[in-house]
Amino acid sequence: MEFFEVVKKRYSHKAAFDASHPVPEEHLVQIVEAGMAAPSAGNGQSAEFVIVNDRALISRIGEITGSVPLKTAPALIAVVSDPGEGGPGVSSYLEDYAAATENMLLAATALGYSCGWIDGPLRDPAMRATLSELLYIPDDRQLMALVPVGLPAEPGPRRPKKPFNRRASWNRYAVIR
Amino acid sequence: MEFFEVVKKRYSHKAAFDASHPVPEEHLVQIVEAGMAAPSAGNGQSAEFVIVNDRALISRIGEITGSVPLKTAPALIAVVSDPGEGGPGVSSYLEDYAAATENMLLAATALGYSCGWIDGPLRDPAMRATLSELLYIPDDRQLMALVPVGLPAEPGPRRPKKPFNRRASWNRYAVIR
Repeated sequence: MEFFEVVKKRYSHKAAFDASHPVPEEHLVQIVEAGMAAPSAGNGQSAEFVIVNDRALISRIGEITGSVPLKTAPALIAVVSDPGEGGPGVSSYLEDYAAATENMLLAATALGYSCGWIDGPLRDPAMRATLSELLYIPDDRQLMALVPVGLPAEPGPRRPKKPFNRRASWNRYAVIR
Repeated sequence: MEFFEVVKKRYSHKAAFDASHPVPEEHLVQIVEAGMAAPSAGNGQSAEFVIVNDRALISRIGEITGSVPLKTAPALIAVVSDPGEGGPGVSSYLEDYAAATENMLLAATALGYSCGWIDGPLRDPAMRATLSELLYIPDDRQLMALVPVGLPAEPGPRRPKKPFNRRASWNRYAVIR
């Protein structure tokens, strides 16, 4: 798909997926490879990925989080990062994982899927710990986000964006707030 | 350009740009609009953009940072964010700005330009303050990164990425470290 069409089509799917349509493994690999191609501070490549397509495991993650998209997704990608990457004061693990995740959302969209970037449930330390244990994530790594991928049960809406001059200006900060 | 070709072509240009080839304003708008289309926590759209194509201003930024790509870029985009966005403990301004920046790097690549994500000089608080003043960035906003865009003086190398199984695994964390 043409790049700017992908950018325009990408949206955060917050409702149910069609669990009966699996995502082929080669598509999941293509999506994760796009994530791996994202830039990272000092090319440190701190973002890592657990690709989940085991039906029972997805159900378990859905139950734990109570999230409809996670419960129904035919596949999901857990994004993991290394909070110690880069060292104190210069760690870029948040930027690294975010750039990789955005590449994966765009790649999933380019392949005709809906997807989402779910990190809300991970703000609960107990829920994060339970999910991390379920995915065998080691203590020196942090589960950052869950990205469900699949065909939507029904296509969801794109959310409206602010007009250009409320977020951008030329040659000096003059954003209309 | 086809999406996966864009992902494969994007690289961090760390050398000189060809300052004699300006980037048309409509391309800069297209790049920034791609940034605006990125997801953000709660659709808060915290990332903002100062598009710099004033030659004297770019020279000044180049002098202050000592960065060759910034000195020679025909245009650059300063990415600004709101560190207070979302509130204490749930602020996602780093992820928001990173996803927007990644969209812009891909968009610049799709339009045939080279680009980069420069935040190293901003780690120096004095340099960040000087640049923020130069761009009239208000106290409640933070300058996050500078994205030079243009034709390269000479094409730069893509940096090698780790093999798949050193960053990804299936259904449990089993990345080979």
